[in-house]
Amino acid sequence: TSSGVFLLQMGWGDLGAFGEPSKETPNLDQMAAEGMLFLDFYTANPLCSPSRAALLTGRLPVRNGFYTTNGHARNAYTPQDIVGGIPDSELLLPELLKKAGYINKIIGKWHLGHRPQFHPLKHGFDEWFGSPNCHFGPYDNRERPNIPVYRDWEMIGRYYEDFKIDLKTGEANLTQLYLQEALDFISKQQASQQPFFLYWAIDATHAPVYASKQFLGTSQRGLYGDAVREIDDSVGKILNHLQQLGISENTFVFFTSDNGAALISAPKQGGSNGPFLCGKQTTFEGGMREPAIAWWPGHIPAGGVSHQLGNVMDLFSTSLSLAGLQPPSDRQIDGIDLLPVILQGKLIDRPIFYYRGNELMAVRAGLYKAHYWTWSNSWEEHSKGIDFCPGQSVSGVTTHTQEEHTYLPLLFHLGRDPGEKFPLSFASEEYQRAVEHISGLVQQHKATLVPGQPQLNVCDQAVMNWSPPGCEKLGKCLKAPESDPKKCSWPH
Amino acid sequence: TSSGVFLLQMGWGDLGAFGEPSKETPNLDQMAAEGMLFLDFYTANPLCSPSRAALLTGRLPVRNGFYTTNGHARNAYTPQDIVGGIPDSELLLPELLKKAGYINKIIGKWHLGHRPQFHPLKHGFDEWFGSPNCHFGPYDNRERPNIPVYRDWEMIGRYYEDFKIDLKTGEANLTQLYLQEALDFISKQQASQQPFFLYWAIDATHAPVYASKQFLGTSQRGLYGDAVREIDDSVGKILNHLQQLGISENTFVFFTSDNGAALISAPKQGGSNGPFLCGKQTTFEGGMREPAIAWWPGHIPAGGVSHQLGNVMDLFSTSLSLAGLQPPSDRQIDGIDLLPVILQGKLIDRPIFYYRGNELMAVRAGLYKAHYWTWSNSWEEHSKGIDFCPGQSVSGVTTHTQEEHTYLPLLFHLGRDPGEKFPLSFASEEYQRAVEHISGLVQQHKATLVPGQPQLNVCDQAVMNWSPPGCEKLGKCLKAPESDPKKCSWPH
Repeated sequence: TSSGVFLLQMGWGDLGAFGEPSKETPNLDQMAAEGMLFLDFYTANPLCSPSRAALLTGRLPVRNGFYTTNGHARNAYTPQDIVGGIPDSELLLPELLKKAGYINKIIGKWHLGHRPQFHPLKHGFDEWFGSPNCHFGPYDNRERPNIPVYRDWEMIGRYYEDFKIDLKTGEANLTQLYLQEALDFISKQQASQQPFFLYWAIDATHAPVYASKQFLGTSQRGLYGDAVREIDDSVGKILNHLQQLGISENTFVFFTSDNGAALISAPKQGGSNGPFLCGKQTTFEGGMREPAIAWWPGHIPAGGVSHQLGNVMDLFSTSLSLAGLQPPSDRQIDGIDLLPVILQGKLIDRPIFYYRGNELMAVRAGLYKAHYWTWSNSWEEHSKGIDFCPGQSVSGVTTHTQEEHTYLPLLFHLGRDPGEKFPLSFASEEYQRAVEHISGLVQQHKATLVPGQPQLNVCDQAVMNWSPPGCEKLGKCLKAPESDPKKCSWPH
Repeated sequence: TSSGVFLLQMGWGDLGAFGEPSKETPNLDQMAAEGMLFLDFYTANPLCSPSRAALLTGRLPVRNGFYTTNGHARNAYTPQDIVGGIPDSELLLPELLKKAGYINKIIGKWHLGHRPQFHPLKHGFDEWFGSPNCHFGPYDNRERPNIPVYRDWEMIGRYYEDFKIDLKTGEANLTQLYLQEALDFISKQQASQQPFFLYWAIDATHAPVYASKQFLGTSQRGLYGDAVREIDDSVGKILNHLQQLGISENTFVFFTSDNGAALISAPKQGGSNGPFLCGKQTTFEGGMREPAIAWWPGHIPAGGVSHQLGNVMDLFSTSLSLAGLQPPSDRQIDGIDLLPVILQGKLIDRPIFYYRGNELMAVRAGLYKAHYWTWSNSWEEHSKGIDFCPGQSVSGVTTHTQEEHTYLPLLFHLGRDPGEKFPLSFASEEYQRAVEHISGLVQQHKATLVPGQPQLNVCDQAVMNWSPPGCEKLGKCLKAPESDPKKCSWPH
């Protein structure tokens, strides 16, 4: 059975099936109606790189090294001056799937390090079309080079130069390119009868948000909605292609997101986290609860809904299971195999750990969520207009100083209070019982935790994408400055 | 064609189909899947009595008299010491439907006045099972009598005495009684082949929230969710009954709510307004945008979605249209006939007026909403813990003083910003254009507005439900105090 993972940056509330009031995602809604909706599904981190590393390794960022120790509870990722990346010691899903004869392709943003040793084709992927970093820019190619776009081993151009993104109009045809890549790859695999793993990690809904001309202005929601509509349309075309080729019953497809909608970009470039608190960068539900849909016609009963606590790391274990492989036994794997949930409707008891950097901020078990630390962002950042919780303010919860609650965690019941607005009374029996249970899980978790070597501490202008492989052929090599490694600065 | 209207107090975000994360409303979700979902549907007022009066008269509360002039922009309703009620001069939907041979029944809360002249059977209904006021209590029958429950002309008992509500456990079997009434009425009408209008206006989700024993503890959402589950189950049984009797294709059914979820009652007794701002009592979207589903098998295409700006007052005009009747021509009717929307997918251009008392607070036209006044509640009330926007605070928007914006309205684009968090820049062309358009609508509206005689100004302990008709037979007549009419006090 082949696997396809759609990994987007979208908020829980961005899909019609999840209550977005414009209801403009007919294809994703149909995917949900034909498959299984996960309502309690999480990412491993409220930021992109660590979540992606977690998805592909099945392990929490604190284990696989995708965190920083530069500051307490700071989010870190892989901008192009990052020195680190995915360690060779980590076993990635495509590396393992190769053993079962899979052909693996990543389309879109890799984000696990851009230096040569971190190249996705060195970590199990057979093909790549996309870029190593976010499509920020345009840059001047002096202070900072534009981000390269790769086909397999070599770059084939750069964003804003060869792959246009018009920041004024929001027009870019990249999603169409990524769609065509996916369709072609699937056709090729079907023809050669080889199982495949397709990781479709496109970035149209990540600021700067873009859409193709034919989608511009089509959404009630503005440019962000145009991008969502184009992604929705593409997902529909990919699923339809699987059906047309007659391989949909042999292909397990999962749709989810790497973090909650970035409310700092709202309203023009930001999505919706529905009824949840705050957004990307935070360990409130808006930062980490994700839309999620499993689709596998003939296997998953149509219209299913699951309250299984799920995590992007589960896609690692589930995809291995589909391939008849065991997860590695020489290390801690945080993902679980969701097949019993998906095929037999089981509910597996497991907690969700909410990390920011290497600090365990919160834990969910069942319907209870205990916050051991709360922080949105600093007063300093907030006073500059950087707001992860626009229009939301819960006293003692969305704090602008890092508040420790280790000895008296803030407890929420996410069934009665999904928006994390009403902490339970410390004096209640319900509080005592739930916190005791969760504290046991925390102790157990911390006792066995072996943090990985932190990868996101050091930045260096010299390692930026000056001269990626293939630049010579294109005449696009740039001169790197002297190496000057520094501690990366992570503001939140 | 018969008509059924389910009128609940639920928030936009309380249904699975509208993104409630526990997704516990399978019957309502199925009703939506078989019918048409209205995503931009409104009530006429953020409070119960005025909304109900508007639904049954097709007219804004400011026209039909369901407002107060006791204070600026104050919400008013019909507690049992209210002197006013629905004026005889108003023509109610059941009065008009009678002309087409309809039998009309109200099950649940009437709320259009409880004094003899306001009795629903004097205003077009043929049958009634329910109560004139909210089920607050229990009272001591000295300072204040318990609320009576009527069958048709006479009371048959009182809440907490004969119709138990256990405030400790939240147990009450009232929804089951209301369900049985509906099933029996429908059976009877089917047998006699008479068209009917059934107004199922039950109140389990109104504080104090209750559910029957078999539903207690069944929801992830606590007692409020238990009540929602029971209502959902009942709706499913009623629709199923229509189908079993073979009359579903001759029965138009509409589900909606009289105001947004009461966030003051959250988290134990309050629902969800999804991504919208604030709740009941306010003219933000959370106070007035409602879940809405039209169902009419064989006529409405399954799975339809409409962005028609709709209003509970439209049920007046639509039900008349279904009966082949014209709305009265001697008065202004605010409701529109939704049949072209429902059957032909048309979109009718019309504004939504958001009133609080007799003050026009805001107007929506297309995707733009202009606020002419903003107010959540007073600092004084807020300091007592009465909060209509818990966890939400939008500077200059969720104000605790009444702020006038008549000459420079706050403008929101509800597509890009459904949560009303980012007012458009006054300097933008988009602002100028939209405000000019809306201001024209406001001028037109105000120029022709003839306010009704305000019904909700005077309160008197003597008019309470001391001795409703039928009390003698039950030995439940109570002695009224001396009449002492006073201005009612409306805190918000």
